[in-house]
Amino acid sequence: MPLLQELNDYLNRHVPLFRAMQAQIQRCDAAGLALTAPLEPNVNDKGTAFGGSMAAIAALTGWTMTTLILRNHGESAEIVIIDSHLKFLRPVREGIVAECVLPEPATAEQFIHRYQERGKARWTVEVVICADGEPAMTFKGQYGVFRPEAS
Amino acid sequence: MPLLQELNDYLNRHVPLFRAMQAQIQRCDAAGLALTAPLEPNVNDKGTAFGGSMAAIAALTGWTMTTLILRNHGESAEIVIIDSHLKFLRPVREGIVAECVLPEPATAEQFIHRYQERGKARWTVEVVICADGEPAMTFKGQYGVFRPEAS
Repeated sequence: MPLLQELNDYLNRHVPLFRAMQAQIQRCDAAGLALTAPLEPNVNDKGTAFGGSMAAIAALTGWTMTTLILRNHGESAEIVIIDSHLKFLRPVREGIVAECVLPEPATAEQFIHRYQERGKARWTVEVVICADGEPAMTFKGQYGVFRPEAS
Repeated sequence: MPLLQELNDYLNRHVPLFRAMQAQIQRCDAAGLALTAPLEPNVNDKGTAFGGSMAAIAALTGWTMTTLILRNHGESAEIVIIDSHLKFLRPVREGIVAECVLPEPATAEQFIHRYQERGKARWTVEVVICADGEPAMTFKGQYGVFRPEAS
Protein backbone atom coordinates (compact mmCIF):
# COMPACT_ATOMS: atom_id res chain seq x y z
CA MET A 1 0.00 0.00 0.00
CA PRO A 2 1.41 3.44 -0.85
CA LEU A 3 2.70 5.21 2.26
CA LEU A 4 0.32 8.18 1.84
CA GLN A 5 -2.72 5.92 1.81
CA GLU A 6 -1.37 3.88 4.71
CA LEU A 7 -0.89 6.98 6.89
CA ASN A 8 -4.29 8.42 5.93
CA ASP A 9 -5.93 5.10 6.78
CA TYR A 10 -4.06 4.98 10.08
CA LEU A 11 -5.14 8.49 11.12
CA ASN A 12 -8.73 7.90 9.96
CA ARG A 13 -8.87 4.74 12.04
CA HIS A 14 -7.15 5.97 15.20
CA VAL A 15 -7.82 9.72 15.45
CA PRO A 16 -11.57 10.52 15.31
CA LEU A 17 -10.86 14.25 15.07
CA PHE A 18 -8.87 13.65 11.86
CA ARG A 19 -12.08 12.19 10.40
CA ALA A 20 -14.27 14.94 11.88
CA MET A 21 -12.06 17.61 10.31
CA GLN A 22 -12.16 15.66 6.99
CA ALA A 23 -8.41 16.07 6.96
CA GLN A 24 -6.07 14.21 4.65
CA ILE A 25 -2.38 13.99 3.94
CA GLN A 26 -2.52 15.20 0.38
CA ARG A 27 1.06 15.40 -0.73
CA CYS A 28 4.29 13.88 0.41
CA ASP A 29 7.28 14.27 -1.90
CA ALA A 30 10.83 15.55 -2.12
CA ALA A 31 9.64 19.08 -1.30
CA GLY A 32 7.85 18.09 1.88
CA LEU A 33 4.28 17.31 2.80
CA ALA A 34 0.88 18.92 2.93
CA LEU A 35 -2.21 18.17 5.04
CA THR A 36 -5.49 19.64 3.85
CA ALA A 37 -8.99 20.02 5.26
CA PRO A 38 -12.09 21.70 3.83
CA LEU A 39 -13.41 24.86 5.48
CA GLU A 40 -16.94 23.63 6.27
CA PRO A 41 -16.22 21.22 9.17
CA ASN A 42 -13.49 23.59 10.41
CA VAL A 43 -15.24 26.93 10.29
CA ASN A 44 -15.65 29.33 13.23
CA ASP A 45 -18.31 31.88 14.11
CA LYS A 46 -16.72 34.42 11.75
CA GLY A 47 -16.94 32.13 8.71
CA THR A 48 -13.16 31.62 8.64
CA ALA A 49 -11.01 28.65 9.66
CA PHE A 50 -11.23 27.88 13.38
CA GLY A 51 -7.86 28.35 15.11
CA GLY A 52 -8.38 25.09 17.01
CA SER A 53 -8.73 23.17 13.75
CA MET A 54 -5.58 24.81 12.39
CA ALA A 55 -3.72 23.92 15.60
CA ALA A 56 -4.87 20.29 15.37
CA ILE A 57 -3.99 20.00 11.68
CA ALA A 58 -0.57 21.57 12.24
CA ALA A 59 0.10 19.14 15.12
CA LEU A 60 -0.78 16.21 12.84
CA THR A 61 1.42 17.61 10.07
CA GLY A 62 4.38 17.61 12.46
CA TRP A 63 3.51 14.08 13.56
CA THR A 64 3.37 12.95 9.92
CA MET A 65 6.73 14.55 9.12
CA THR A 66 8.28 12.84 12.15
CA THR A 67 6.79 9.49 11.10
CA LEU A 68 8.08 9.93 7.53
CA ILE A 69 11.62 10.76 8.59
CA LEU A 70 11.68 7.71 10.85
CA ARG A 71 10.35 5.51 8.02
CA ASN A 72 12.87 6.92 5.55
CA HIS A 73 15.59 5.73 7.91
CA GLY A 74 14.00 2.33 8.50
CA GLU A 75 12.90 3.25 12.01
CA SER A 76 9.69 3.41 13.98
CA ALA A 77 9.00 4.99 17.36
CA GLU A 78 6.40 6.24 19.77
CA ILE A 79 5.90 9.93 18.98
CA VAL A 80 4.67 12.56 21.43
CA ILE A 81 4.31 16.30 21.11
CA ILE A 82 6.24 18.16 23.82
CA ASP A 83 5.33 21.77 23.12
CA SER A 84 4.11 24.05 20.37
CA HIS A 85 4.07 27.73 19.58
CA LEU A 86 1.48 29.10 17.17
CA LYS A 87 1.06 32.53 15.61
CA PHE A 88 -2.20 33.48 13.93
CA LEU A 89 -1.39 36.16 11.37
CA ARG A 90 -4.48 36.51 9.15
CA PRO A 91 -7.85 34.80 8.61
CA VAL A 92 -8.09 31.73 6.38
CA ARG A 93 -11.23 31.99 4.24
CA GLU A 94 -10.83 28.81 2.22
CA GLY A 95 -9.80 25.22 2.83
CA ILE A 96 -6.87 24.70 5.18
CA VAL A 97 -3.55 23.67 3.61
CA ALA A 98 -0.80 22.98 6.14
CA GLU A 99 2.67 22.61 4.66
CA CYS A 100 5.90 21.33 6.12
CA VAL A 101 9.19 21.46 4.25
CA LEU A 102 11.48 18.41 4.44
CA PRO A 103 14.26 19.10 6.95
CA GLU A 104 17.88 19.43 5.85
CA PRO A 105 19.39 15.93 5.54
CA ALA A 106 21.92 16.75 8.28
CA THR A 107 19.12 17.71 10.71
CA ALA A 108 17.18 14.52 10.01
CA GLU A 109 20.30 12.38 10.30
CA GLN A 110 21.33 13.94 13.59
CA PHE A 111 17.82 13.32 14.95
CA ILE A 112 17.78 9.69 13.80
CA HIS A 113 21.34 9.10 14.97
CA ARG A 114 20.48 10.37 18.46
CA TYR A 115 17.40 8.15 18.55
CA GLN A 116 19.37 5.08 17.48
CA GLU A 117 22.08 5.80 20.02
CA ARG A 118 19.93 6.64 23.05
CA GLY A 119 16.52 5.15 22.26
CA LYS A 120 15.01 8.62 22.45
CA ALA A 121 15.39 12.00 20.80
CA ARG A 122 13.53 15.25 20.19
CA TRP A 123 13.37 17.67 17.34
CA THR A 124 11.42 20.71 16.15
CA VAL A 125 9.10 20.78 13.15
CA GLU A 126 7.79 23.94 11.50
CA VAL A 127 4.43 24.07 9.73
CA VAL A 128 2.83 26.93 7.81
CA ILE A 129 -0.78 27.49 6.74
CA CYS A 130 -1.05 30.14 4.03
CA ALA A 131 -3.92 32.32 2.84
CA ASP A 132 -3.70 34.33 -0.38
CA GLY A 133 -0.06 33.32 -0.68
CA GLU A 134 0.91 34.78 2.70
CA PRO A 135 1.52 32.91 5.97
CA ALA A 136 -1.74 32.90 7.95
CA MET A 137 -0.61 30.62 10.76
CA THR A 138 2.84 29.42 11.75
CA PHE A 139 3.44 26.45 14.04
CA LYS A 140 6.67 25.40 15.68
CA GLY A 141 6.29 22.09 17.49
CA GLN A 142 8.79 20.02 19.42
CA TYR A 143 8.27 16.26 19.15
CA GLY A 144 9.84 13.51 21.19
CA VAL A 145 10.38 9.95 19.98
CA PHE A 146 11.21 6.90 22.02
CA ARG A 147 11.43 3.15 21.58
CA PRO A 148 8.04 1.46 21.93
CA GLU A 149 7.85 -0.74 25.03
CA ALA A 150 8.18 -4.42 24.17
CA SER A 151 4.72 -6.00 24.17
CA MET B 1 -31.52 32.12 28.86
CA PRO B 2 -28.68 31.39 31.30
CA LEU B 3 -25.33 32.59 29.96
CA LEU B 4 -23.77 29.10 30.07
CA GLN B 5 -26.52 27.64 27.90
CA GLU B 6 -26.42 30.62 25.56
CA LEU B 7 -22.65 30.24 25.00
CA ASN B 8 -22.91 26.46 24.57
CA ASP B 9 -25.70 26.91 22.03
CA TYR B 10 -23.66 29.55 20.22
CA LEU B 11 -20.57 27.33 19.94
CA ASN B 12 -22.63 24.29 18.96
CA ARG B 13 -24.28 26.31 16.21
CA HIS B 14 -21.23 28.13 14.85
CA VAL B 15 -18.20 25.89 15.50
CA PRO B 16 -18.68 22.38 14.03
CA LEU B 17 -15.52 21.13 15.74
CA PHE B 18 -17.00 22.06 19.14
CA ARG B 19 -19.85 19.65 18.31
CA ALA B 20 -17.48 17.00 16.89
CA MET B 21 -15.42 17.07 20.09
CA GLN B 22 -18.67 16.88 22.13
CA ALA B 23 -17.26 19.77 24.12
CA GLN B 24 -19.25 21.85 26.55
CA ILE B 25 -18.73 24.78 28.87
CA GLN B 26 -19.50 22.99 32.08
CA ARG B 27 -18.85 25.50 34.78
CA CYS B 28 -18.61 29.24 34.96
CA ASP B 29 -18.54 30.78 38.42
CA ALA B 30 -16.59 33.05 40.73
CA ALA B 31 -13.61 30.67 40.57
CA GLY B 32 -13.39 30.64 36.79
CA LEU B 33 -14.61 28.35 34.06
CA ALA B 34 -14.20 24.82 32.80
CA LEU B 35 -14.69 23.28 29.35
CA THR B 36 -15.00 19.53 29.18
CA ALA B 37 -15.00 16.90 26.44
CA PRO B 38 -15.19 13.10 26.62
CA LEU B 39 -12.15 11.04 25.62
CA GLU B 40 -13.81 8.95 22.89
CA PRO B 41 -14.17 11.58 20.12
CA ASN B 42 -10.84 13.11 21.16
CA VAL B 43 -8.64 10.06 21.45
CA ASN B 44 -5.35 9.51 19.62
CA ASP B 45 -3.58 6.39 18.40
CA LYS B 46 -2.16 5.78 21.89
CA GLY B 47 -5.61 5.73 23.53
CA THR B 48 -4.97 9.06 25.29
CA ALA B 49 -6.31 12.54 24.58
CA PHE B 50 -5.21 13.88 21.18
CA GLY B 51 -3.01 16.99 21.55
CA GLY B 52 -4.93 18.70 18.75
CA SER B 53 -8.20 18.29 20.63
CA MET B 54 -6.61 19.68 23.78
CA ALA B 55 -5.23 22.63 21.80
CA ALA B 56 -8.67 23.33 20.29
CA ILE B 57 -10.46 23.04 23.64
CA ALA B 58 -7.90 25.30 25.33
CA ALA B 59 -8.32 27.89 22.56
CA LEU B 60 -12.11 27.83 23.08
CA THR B 61 -11.66 28.13 26.85
CA GLY B 62 -9.64 31.31 26.33
CA TRP B 63 -12.28 32.59 23.90
CA THR B 64 -15.02 31.88 26.45
CA MET B 65 -13.13 33.64 29.25
CA THR B 66 -12.62 36.68 27.01
CA THR B 67 -16.33 36.70 26.09
CA LEU B 68 -17.32 36.45 29.76
CA ILE B 69 -15.10 39.30 30.89
CA LEU B 70 -16.48 41.50 28.11
CA ARG B 71 -20.07 40.55 29.09
CA ASN B 72 -19.39 41.20 32.77
CA HIS B 73 -18.44 44.74 31.80
CA GLY B 74 -21.42 45.22 29.49
CA GLU B 75 -19.26 44.98 26.36
CA SER B 76 -19.11 42.85 23.23
CA ALA B 77 -16.35 42.59 20.64
CA GLU B 78 -14.89 40.61 17.80
CA ILE B 79 -12.38 38.21 19.36
CA VAL B 80 -9.37 36.74 17.57
CA ILE B 81 -6.54 34.58 18.82
CA ILE B 82 -3.13 36.13 18.14
CA ASP B 83 -0.75 33.46 19.39
CA SER B 84 -0.56 30.53 21.75
CA HIS B 85 2.08 28.51 23.52
CA LEU B 86 1.30 24.98 24.66
CA LYS B 87 3.24 22.54 26.79
CA PHE B 88 2.28 18.88 26.89
CA LEU B 89 3.48 17.48 30.20
CA ARG B 90 1.83 14.07 30.60
CA PRO B 91 -0.82 11.94 28.87
CA VAL B 92 -4.52 12.48 29.60
CA ARG B 93 -6.24 9.10 29.92
CA GLU B 94 -9.75 10.29 30.78
CA GLY B 95 -12.13 13.01 29.66
CA ILE B 96 -10.57 16.42 29.01
CA VAL B 97 -11.23 19.16 31.59
CA ALA B 98 -9.77 22.54 30.65
CA GLU B 99 -9.81 25.11 33.42
CA CYS B 100 -9.22 28.82 33.42
CA VAL B 101 -9.09 30.89 36.59
CA LEU B 102 -10.84 34.28 36.59
CA PRO B 103 -8.25 37.03 36.11
CA GLU B 104 -7.46 39.52 38.85
CA PRO B 105 -10.08 42.32 38.75
CA ALA B 106 -7.35 44.88 38.00
CA THR B 107 -6.17 42.87 34.96
CA ALA B 108 -9.70 42.58 33.59
CA GLU B 109 -10.43 46.26 34.21
CA GLN B 110 -7.24 47.38 32.51
CA PHE B 111 -8.10 45.19 29.49
CA ILE B 112 -11.67 46.51 29.29
CA HIS B 113 -10.57 50.10 29.86
CA ARG B 114 -8.07 49.88 26.99
CA TYR B 115 -10.75 48.40 24.73
CA GLN B 116 -13.24 51.14 25.61
CA GLU B 117 -10.65 53.85 25.04
CA ARG B 118 -9.08 52.60 21.80
CA GLY B 119 -11.69 50.24 20.35
CA LYS B 120 -9.16 47.42 20.53
CA ALA B 121 -7.05 45.63 23.10
CA ARG B 122 -5.20 42.38 23.72
CA TRP B 123 -4.63 40.22 26.73
CA THR B 124 -3.27 36.81 27.70
CA VAL B 125 -5.34 33.93 29.05
CA GLU B 126 -3.90 30.85 30.75
CA VAL B 127 -5.63 27.46 30.60
CA VAL B 128 -4.65 24.19 32.28
CA ILE B 129 -5.75 20.61 31.58
CA CYS B 130 -4.97 18.29 34.48
CA ALA B 131 -4.56 14.52 34.73
CA ASP B 132 -4.41 12.74 38.08
CA GLY B 133 -4.35 16.12 39.78
CA GLU B 134 -1.22 17.31 37.96
CA PRO B 135 -0.99 19.71 35.00
CA ALA B 136 -0.98 17.66 31.81
CA MET B 137 -1.17 20.55 29.35
CA THR B 138 -0.69 24.26 29.84
CA PHE B 139 -1.86 26.86 27.34
CA LYS B 140 -1.00 30.54 27.24
CA GLY B 141 -2.96 32.34 24.55
CA GLN B 142 -3.00 35.99 23.52
CA TYR B 143 -6.39 37.24 22.33
CA GLY B 144 -7.21 40.48 20.56
CA VAL B 145 -10.59 42.20 20.72
CA PHE B 146 -11.87 44.96 18.49
CA ARG B 147 -15.12 46.78 17.78
CA PRO B 148 -17.31 44.88 15.33
CA GLU B 149 -17.69 46.70 12.02
CA ALA B 150 -21.05 48.43 11.74
CA SER B 151 -23.34 46.33 9.59
